[in-house]
Amino acid sequence: MLAGLMQQVPLTLNLVRERVLDLYPNKTVTTRFRGGMHVIAYRDLLARAGRLANFLSEAGVGRGARVATLAWNSHRHLELYLAVPCMGAVLHTINARLLAPDVARLLAHADDQILFVDWSIWRTMGREIELPPAVRHVVVMEDEPVTPSDLAMAAGVAGHAYEQAIGGYDAAFSWPDLDENEAAGLCYTSGTTGDPKGVLYSHRSTTLHTLACLFADGIAMRERDVCLPAVPMFHANAWGFPYAALMAGASLALPCRETDPASLIELIETAQVTMATAVPTVWIAFLDHLRSNPDSADRIASLKRLPVGGAAIGKSFIDDFARHGIEVMHCWGMTEISPLGLTNVARSDLDAQQTAATRSAQGLPIPGCRLRIVDADGIRCEMDGRTPGELQISSPWAAASYYGGLDGASKPSDSFVADEGRIWLKTGDIATVDPHGYVRIVDRAKDLIKSGGEWISSQSLELQIMSRTDVREAAAIARPDPKWQERPVICVALRSDTEQDRKRFEQNYRSYLSRSFPKWQIPEDVVFYAELPKGKTGKVDKVALRRMITGENGPDDPK
Amino acid sequence: MLAGLMQQVPLTLNLVRERVLDLYPNKTVTTRFRGGMHVIAYRDLLARAGRLANFLSEAGVGRGARVATLAWNSHRHLELYLAVPCMGAVLHTINARLLAPDVARLLAHADDQILFVDWSIWRTMGREIELPPAVRHVVVMEDEPVTPSDLAMAAGVAGHAYEQAIGGYDAAFSWPDLDENEAAGLCYTSGTTGDPKGVLYSHRSTTLHTLACLFADGIAMRERDVCLPAVPMFHANAWGFPYAALMAGASLALPCRETDPASLIELIETAQVTMATAVPTVWIAFLDHLRSNPDSADRIASLKRLPVGGAAIGKSFIDDFARHGIEVMHCWGMTEISPLGLTNVARSDLDAQQTAATRSAQGLPIPGCRLRIVDADGIRCEMDGRTPGELQISSPWAAASYYGGLDGASKPSDSFVADEGRIWLKTGDIATVDPHGYVRIVDRAKDLIKSGGEWISSQSLELQIMSRTDVREAAAIARPDPKWQERPVICVALRSDTEQDRKRFEQNYRSYLSRSFPKWQIPEDVVFYAELPKGKTGKVDKVALRRMITGENGPDDPK
Repeated sequence: MLAGLMQQVPLTLNLVRERVLDLYPNKTVTTRFRGGMHVIAYRDLLARAGRLANFLSEAGVGRGARVATLAWNSHRHLELYLAVPCMGAVLHTINARLLAPDVARLLAHADDQILFVDWSIWRTMGREIELPPAVRHVVVMEDEPVTPSDLAMAAGVAGHAYEQAIGGYDAAFSWPDLDENEAAGLCYTSGTTGDPKGVLYSHRSTTLHTLACLFADGIAMRERDVCLPAVPMFHANAWGFPYAALMAGASLALPCRETDPASLIELIETAQVTMATAVPTVWIAFLDHLRSNPDSADRIASLKRLPVGGAAIGKSFIDDFARHGIEVMHCWGMTEISPLGLTNVARSDLDAQQTAATRSAQGLPIPGCRLRIVDADGIRCEMDGRTPGELQISSPWAAASYYGGLDGASKPSDSFVADEGRIWLKTGDIATVDPHGYVRIVDRAKDLIKSGGEWISSQSLELQIMSRTDVREAAAIARPDPKWQERPVICVALRSDTEQDRKRFEQNYRSYLSRSFPKWQIPEDVVFYAELPKGKTGKVDKVALRRMITGENGPDDPK
Repeated sequence: MLAGLMQQVPLTLNLVRERVLDLYPNKTVTTRFRGGMHVIAYRDLLARAGRLANFLSEAGVGRGARVATLAWNSHRHLELYLAVPCMGAVLHTINARLLAPDVARLLAHADDQILFVDWSIWRTMGREIELPPAVRHVVVMEDEPVTPSDLAMAAGVAGHAYEQAIGGYDAAFSWPDLDENEAAGLCYTSGTTGDPKGVLYSHRSTTLHTLACLFADGIAMRERDVCLPAVPMFHANAWGFPYAALMAGASLALPCRETDPASLIELIETAQVTMATAVPTVWIAFLDHLRSNPDSADRIASLKRLPVGGAAIGKSFIDDFARHGIEVMHCWGMTEISPLGLTNVARSDLDAQQTAATRSAQGLPIPGCRLRIVDADGIRCEMDGRTPGELQISSPWAAASYYGGLDGASKPSDSFVADEGRIWLKTGDIATVDPHGYVRIVDRAKDLIKSGGEWISSQSLELQIMSRTDVREAAAIARPDPKWQERPVICVALRSDTEQDRKRFEQNYRSYLSRSFPKWQIPEDVVFYAELPKGKTGKVDKVALRRMITGENGPDDPK
């Protein structure tokens, strides 16, 4: 092989750390704690990350060691984002909405050496977490005041308060040279059922994902942005936005746990946020709040862009934000893709009608991501915008396997397939791809409704129902049917939820759906809720809905 | 080492090729040949690249083999850009402005196996090129009509016409899996003096550079762009713009050799070009043309952005284009950096006055590039906006060494230094860096003027003189001086160049300069030219100027 003669600069998060140091020391992170706003310059954040690395080093955290966090979005969590991977250790972000036994199970599976936990979380569930023996240190982070007695731990475990722990160390740290393929982060897709599925990000994958967030056709993070990731930092690195913001030189605004409309509005106004991101549920409540509090519109005038993902969104969602001068961009991804795979960028070669029709699609693959859809036999389906197939992804920031625990080996999984000379991640999502490349997720493979031998897309039904202005949330669920095997049921939460509203909905939803669906796909029944049940990730919990409707349990591990 | 478990997708130009195939088959390349406009869809371009790869394979071109081009900007050259690297061979783009002996020397140094050459070039100088024995095929590309007798070659060399050569082959080619560190391209920085300095790009370096051209803060290539690279495709891959356009899904417009204003305007109007790039000389003539042909303004209404590099530009240059609704973005780079290292992006944390003051700076390092300035002892200089030092670059798309020829080894060079745990490319440019990170190239190391033991920046003088509205081109040159060793002389081409204009300039340029320079830096003399002499890259040829002014020869290898 004739090798090129170019510099072998490894793609590691040190590129992010160094760039912030060189160019953006005066940019800031604003964290909204319950007690008030906390602002810190990146210069000081980096210095604290250095202190933290020295503390970790002293605590015995070496190359490849796992460091767990159980924390909301704060500047301290961001310090861990920088210090842990850049010192060559692995940041394991645990979902703070899990129950204590699940947390303990993940700590054991990841073989974590140390746990950083927000006091507000430790206070409520800390004593219930049975720490595995490998965890020798618990560092409590002071999102609320902590007293020395709060740090009492079980035998063999040292308790620390974060500020005091790092305060004794020097800001200068001798950051090691890293291999770009070294592990940088670990994130489990679910911790409640079955075998934990951990995605072990490398420096290379996270760095390339970070660069991909800067593309003009896409997230387009810029220095002039102030970025508010309201998606938790334990969900696939808050969709990669904190690293992207640091790389671009954008300031950050972090909401801790509070993503209710009033808290977000206060943070947006204070930090002059230009872009924010969270799952649609958060923004549906936000829109409701703006409707009842029209005066709030002025307070969010700085907000211009809303990359949204995690669930399908409807036309009215996009239109409602457009009225506030806020552009919604539909994104799609999963923990296994770091997480971004698709962004809905408007192509210039579509006419106005086509553009309107593609707005609620999940989008186009990001440069660096390649996709295909395949049928049940793994054969490529036609990308004609009509034929559904399983969406599969090939990308340098997509997983090749799941983490096997302890020894760092991968474990067997049918989520990956080798074909066409590469590894494909099987997303489990059923999608169509139109000739312009726009992907529409028509369903989770396991959420398809099979009626009389034909498939009905629950998401297509949901999208259509959600485009009604009187609907706040909607889901379509399969109910066992003696004649048709399954029939769809619509579950709805209305904006205005009086008896009369429900009656009106019930009277006309069928004719509304009949514009877009054949008769046999239209649900006979509707069930009303004040609010749909949500899972730990804030998405509608279809398993719970199914249970409520049918009394039965649905399939495991819903997404 | 605990390795991440992510997909090992190599960063190769196959990502570009595949993306065009998947998403942008209907986008187009418009080439302006002298005989008229030629439009081809990317779908057909890719098919022709497949035929070309089959032809090359048949001709014995294997992995790592060098394929030379001597050609202007056309769709055929773009087909070579795709086919040659993606089949695992190395694209060696030779400067078409070199003389025949220099071309022969580079063919020999690179050990090229085959030469692709525009007929217009071969017609005029082909017979003078003494082909090295390794070159067994010459493929003439039909930018003008070619007759069979035109293909007669020396003994042992097969002559081909491009269209006929590829026409006999299938469009399907079995593109191999490549290692991202394999060589993809070879470009010599100068072929006229001293040892040829070849930069051997890898797939990884060119792919990362391509992605960097998509960053929103920077070149920001988008699908909706139509990109006109008027910089030759033999200059560092036309600054990487063709690959970036393909990756982004932007259409391309290629001008062949003709970059005169009338030809460019015709191409901009026909292809509805949105962004174009070339050295300032091209755009100075363009502005002159617009001044004398105000009706042309309407014809370039689609043009919005002008990334410009290769020489310093003045405020009036930027202002003149702004009046046409065209945003000039100053860029800086060199062949050794693929070539982009800096882009002048306006930071949001500057006030209006600071912004105005930074507009003519070369810019900020692109994410992925790191820089430092060092003194003569290699010690880092203060980045205070005042202290000049040699600019050095670390980046995955910067060279680590020069190509040693034949065996593919690197050759010793003092252009690279290992320090701080990495390789730095010594650019030979003297720069200041201000606290916000903006780099100002104050001089080529060899263009500094030493007067009375003090350095005078020729580029600072040039910039100031060029900011006068009556100046078209300007250069400051060192003239030997018995008292001060050297004194600066101003060389000027005026826009309106009458005897009266010259007199007025002579009378007031000193007072004009005295606003910005101390008295001892102000040149005593000015020399007027109708046009300044240019080198083969279109830049002002300071060696020639020095010779004209002093009768002596200057240093070798000017940039």
